[in-house]
Amino acid sequence: MIPTQSGPCLPLELSSSPIIVLGRLGFEIKRHAIEQLEAAGSSLYDYSVLALLAEGASETQASIADTLKLDRSQLVGLLDGLEERALIERRRDPNDRRRHTVSLTPAGKAQLGRLRAVVKQVEDHFLAPLDAESRQVLYQLLFRVACHHDTRFARPAEVVAAVS
Amino acid sequence: MIPTQSGPCLPLELSSSPIIVLGRLGFEIKRHAIEQLEAAGSSLYDYSVLALLAEGASETQASIADTLKLDRSQLVGLLDGLEERALIERRRDPNDRRRHTVSLTPAGKAQLGRLRAVVKQVEDHFLAPLDAESRQVLYQLLFRVACHHDTRFARPAEVVAAVS
Repeated sequence: MIPTQSGPCLPLELSSSPIIVLGRLGFEIKRHAIEQLEAAGSSLYDYSVLALLAEGASETQASIADTLKLDRSQLVGLLDGLEERALIERRRDPNDRRRHTVSLTPAGKAQLGRLRAVVKQVEDHFLAPLDAESRQVLYQLLFRVACHHDTRFARPAEVVAAVS
Repeated sequence: MIPTQSGPCLPLELSSSPIIVLGRLGFEIKRHAIEQLEAAGSSLYDYSVLALLAEGASETQASIADTLKLDRSQLVGLLDGLEERALIERRRDPNDRRRHTVSLTPAGKAQLGRLRAVVKQVEDHFLAPLDAESRQVLYQLLFRVACHHDTRFARPAEVVAAVS
């Protein structure tokens, strides 16, 4: 069923274009997610760093910068902020004193849990009209597109090997 | 098949979230589309106004502002720019001398054709990994989500009645 209405409608040229609808919606979602994360005390970058550390145990500053495509000085500022709030800790790598490893603190894990709940709320708000199956179909299509343009979306080969 | 790779991978928490993937991709697409339209001499707003006028024959300034959710002063500046480039023309409404109607010129139609081609190129670039059928599935899902949050995406009732 095609939704209809009698108020102002966007030109069909725009509302029937997959790329225009995807662009508008994604832009709106990202803006909304950033706002909601900030209301919970963290930036989208903070969330990305905490999520990465939760999966990677401890990481070097260089590997975090590479994974999140941040320049080193941007990352240092970000890690300083997280360390001040006691969400992460930096230690000198005992095997290589020039390197720092970074890991989550218990407070960092708790904050990550709060941010994860925020993101889930944003998902439930925006994807409300889609049931679980439709969300999965949408995700698979978007994931194919994302992987095509940015290899960082692909799964590490060892993870895929372990589950197949 | 799940794409795999050996370089840096985003945390699964991010790459497996439909809303994170949708937000990142849509944000990137909108940024890229704006850049490409600007390289062709127009803003995304210009494109929206030209597309609206192409479907609406002639519109009043008030109805354009309502449809595109622009405030009046923003719209006036936008229409001034389009009129200077002879892409639109404004006329006093003969039935109501206080109103202006706005319509496309032949040069405006030609520019709209160029911008439409730009948007199609952006679509083909980003959605390259999806065939026509998958693009249609993606569009239908995104369209349902968009209509749920913004009634301007819905079709005018008379358009739907005419095709069903």
